[in-house]
Amino acid sequence: MNDKDYMRQAIELARINVAKGGGPFGAIIVKDGEVIARSGNSVTRDNDPTAHAEINCIRAACKKLESFELKGCVIYSSCEPCPMCLSAIYWARLDRLIYASTRQDAALAGFDDDFIYKEIPLANEARSLKCEHLCLNESELPFDDWKSKEDKTEY
Amino acid sequence: MNDKDYMRQAIELARINVAKGGGPFGAIIVKDGEVIARSGNSVTRDNDPTAHAEINCIRAACKKLESFELKGCVIYSSCEPCPMCLSAIYWARLDRLIYASTRQDAALAGFDDDFIYKEIPLANEARSLKCEHLCLNESELPFDDWKSKEDKTEY
Repeated sequence: MNDKDYMRQAIELARINVAKGGGPFGAIIVKDGEVIARSGNSVTRDNDPTAHAEINCIRAACKKLESFELKGCVIYSSCEPCPMCLSAIYWARLDRLIYASTRQDAALAGFDDDFIYKEIPLANEARSLKCEHLCLNESELPFDDWKSKEDKTEY
Repeated sequence: MNDKDYMRQAIELARINVAKGGGPFGAIIVKDGEVIARSGNSVTRDNDPTAHAEINCIRAACKKLESFELKGCVIYSSCEPCPMCLSAIYWARLDRLIYASTRQDAALAGFDDDFIYKEIPLANEARSLKCEHLCLNESELPFDDWKSKEDKTEY
């Protein structure tokens, strides 16, 4: 099995997902040559806007490994991850990301991936979403608690 | 109840979450003046790197409303959302985001939010994560299936 073989599995998952009424996206996660998780996009089926193929797959792989990190793993996605999924890949500490179609292909199919990539780097006032920074006296207290806590699990 | 009152609830949630062994983050979602969901960060408790306060809260609100969209809702987050959570807020179509502490505050407490904000706009070869575009003949097939499917649920 090489990168192309794994990617064909992710693409096939995406196609099966469309046939089952889901979105046109699929992802698999491989560790030491073994596929440890696979998922399509289930946003509409699960009423969960975060249930993209990559997020579902990361959650399933973490559950399987009983870990909140996926070091040593590779994710194959049928399409370039949106910024939500790309960030999740960073948080999960995967070693490598490989994707087939692009954010521009997704845009041509009606998805907002490319739009959201353009919004993320903007200042609050330039975004189409109303974003406000409301600083209160209490704002730093959660971080103060965190810094002073001795028995915490860092992540 | 005004923005400050709701934000104090989100901050209090973050503090309670630290006390319970979780991360220093809390979020609530309000619709028509009613708090419809609230959550802390549960990454380490749930072995789920996507279980940030905002993601958990969006998932809970969608479950409650039985919808994959949260139009008409406002999210109050104790800290500026990371790119994963900010993107999820776009995907969920919330009306408004309000946050208290910032990505820089989070960085000072040891979190990667600011780092990931800097990685997202980079080209593949400039990122610290190995990202590869592997285009196959089959790459476009899932989108072709999607475009030609007549009974699909768009999102």
